[in-house]
Amino acid sequence: MTCKILVLPGDGIGPDITAEAIKILKACQKQGLDIEIEEALVGGAAYDAEGDPLPRETLLKAQAADAILLGAVGGPQWDKLEDIAKRPERGLLGLRKELGLFGNLRPAFLYPQLAEASSLKAEVVSGLDIMIVRELTGGIYFGQPRGIEERDGQRVGFNTYVYSEAEIERIGRVAFEMARKRNRKLCSVDKANVLEVTMLWREVMERLAPEYPDVELSHMYVDNAAMQLVRAPKQFDVIVTGNMFGDILSDAAAMLTGSIGMLPSASLNEKGQGMFEPCHGSAPDIAGQNIANPLATILSVAMMLRYSLDEPELAGRIERAVSQVLDSDLRTADIAYADTRKVSTSEMGDAVLEAF
Amino acid sequence: MTCKILVLPGDGIGPDITAEAIKILKACQKQGLDIEIEEALVGGAAYDAEGDPLPRETLLKAQAADAILLGAVGGPQWDKLEDIAKRPERGLLGLRKELGLFGNLRPAFLYPQLAEASSLKAEVVSGLDIMIVRELTGGIYFGQPRGIEERDGQRVGFNTYVYSEAEIERIGRVAFEMARKRNRKLCSVDKANVLEVTMLWREVMERLAPEYPDVELSHMYVDNAAMQLVRAPKQFDVIVTGNMFGDILSDAAAMLTGSIGMLPSASLNEKGQGMFEPCHGSAPDIAGQNIANPLATILSVAMMLRYSLDEPELAGRIERAVSQVLDSDLRTADIAYADTRKVSTSEMGDAVLEAF
Ligand SMILES: CC(C)[C@H](C(=O)O)[C@@H](O)C(=O)O
Ligand SMILES: CC(C)[C@H](C(=O)O)[C@@H](O)C(=O)O
Repeated sequence: MTCKILVLPGDGIGPDITAEAIKILKACQKQGLDIEIEEALVGGAAYDAEGDPLPRETLLKAQAADAILLGAVGGPQWDKLEDIAKRPERGLLGLRKELGLFGNLRPAFLYPQLAEASSLKAEVVSGLDIMIVRELTGGIYFGQPRGIEERDGQRVGFNTYVYSEAEIERIGRVAFEMARKRNRKLCSVDKANVLEVTMLWREVMERLAPEYPDVELSHMYVDNAAMQLVRAPKQFDVIVTGNMFGDILSDAAAMLTGSIGMLPSASLNEKGQGMFEPCHGSAPDIAGQNIANPLATILSVAMMLRYSLDEPELAGRIERAVSQVLDSDLRTADIAYADTRKVSTSEMGDAVLEAF
Repeated sequence: MTCKILVLPGDGIGPDITAEAIKILKACQKQGLDIEIEEALVGGAAYDAEGDPLPRETLLKAQAADAILLGAVGGPQWDKLEDIAKRPERGLLGLRKELGLFGNLRPAFLYPQLAEASSLKAEVVSGLDIMIVRELTGGIYFGQPRGIEERDGQRVGFNTYVYSEAEIERIGRVAFEMARKRNRKLCSVDKANVLEVTMLWREVMERLAPEYPDVELSHMYVDNAAMQLVRAPKQFDVIVTGNMFGDILSDAAAMLTGSIGMLPSASLNEKGQGMFEPCHGSAPDIAGQNIANPLATILSVAMMLRYSLDEPELAGRIERAVSQVLDSDLRTADIAYADTRKVSTSEMGDAVLEAF
């Protein structure tokens, strides 16, 4: 059966980098992967064209797709939009929610070839390989009630941080399973000394633990986790946490590698449908200049093959091709230094294609 | 008028480190500082003695004090307390709330003598000097409603992230004033692309800005702030943010220095009353062994002199004494390496006293 892949280039460098990822998808197709590729608008680009960051047509296509490849959304021209429902980010949040993409996988992996790029000392980060499992469709991002209203003569802003047992259990299982496939260490991050919602989180994680006796579960407060990521990140294997803490910690963890232009991510629902996107943003300042790093997006295709299309072999080939290109010292501007060879976005894409 | 100082040693290494800080306070007294020192119980120690982490007597003494010096609270023996109102942390949160200590100042300062201790590359952190201003009595730490309850047959945990304009304005002013005394750069951290409460936060910060034309205000999303702290922390001067984000970011920032045993903090209310405490925790594993680092607590006394007792000169003298002791290569175990001289908690305290 033909797999439907929807590409959502989005804003900023989104079109530049997804173009290179599409080359790899097409190469897979030539090798016999049965896929069909479509494109649609999302984010600021969709707002400009249709007045909505997540047009109905895009949502319908997304629902019908087996997997989605997203570039990036957002840019300064939309930051001042009064109606926040129209902001580019809402396109992304809408897709996550509508498709039920609750399981967000964010690896923080240090490529040995890029060890220099890290702001941390080599011995602290060499060999770093963390997987952050972030809950993506609940928590304070979506909790009700929310808003800004007048109370006793002044305005008050409020949001609700809420999780049900079922939501916690569901993401917990994803994390335990992930730990099983890796080094069998799972650290659940919460703020159970202050927030009731995370006390329930901790309790549910504890309750799941006996079902995964081969996985060593630990708990850490979020402030300590932020410290430990800076101090000794290699102590972690898999981290599981809620939407907001996951947003913060996964970005911190990604930055430990010094090359966020390298890091892919996956967002999965219960049916195995997934959205795949680079961890970095839309970098509007360098959009359309053919200088952005397409590797995170290309590696997102590898995640797509592994997690949604059940093609781990092809996934591995893409990952090895990327590693080989790095070995040959080709670098986009963001990861270039001293003796490496600086290449453009499309040259990088072509190099991966050749090594594939 | 005699200033009343209340010392709350608390748990774990709390008694070890506050004992050294008291030596310095007494030295100031000898030099003419008109103070009166009292002690009381808080945290787990108070729970064990009186069944309450914040006994009424302690609260009354705290309210009557001009300044409070706190050691640290918490320990594994109290982590399993079913009634969370009895946990050691509640003593701390109760003091903050009851005294209205909304303005939390958390410096992240790298002592040049300890540059080696950082997990970051020297060029990334040398000269690091950030002040994080964290709102401490509002936000999700104290928002109502909160709890765990049954809904549709399953348990749900919830907390409320809430700020009023007045609360935001109050902490904003503290931050702008602080920036004025430093390098006039203020970065307000929020998640205004997702959370309404932080949209209001950003709006109020913007509204205050024209009153401080000499301060350059910028805004950053919390996920990006976590990344930027890892990537290039020296871009920051003063950071202002809410209670939860402040908890996470201030710990990450502190850890950039690699020597959290050095970092003091202040928590102030509108009357200038303050509670002063080290940023590190109660380290129960080394409690009572006379090996903990007392410098963060001694530097907390310096903050007390500067912010609550209006004795900037004495504060400066303590800070210089600490720096001098570091110059002479004395180190407690946590900051010792290679060619330095390892000393105990009390030896370190005595050395500072001598240099004072
Ligand atoms: C753009 C924004 C809404 C989003 C988030 O906060 O989830 C982004 O930071 C991310 O982590 O994917
Ligand atoms: C102990 C805990 C309640 C406290 C907090 O979260 O505020 C601590 O982490 C801190 O930062 O002072």
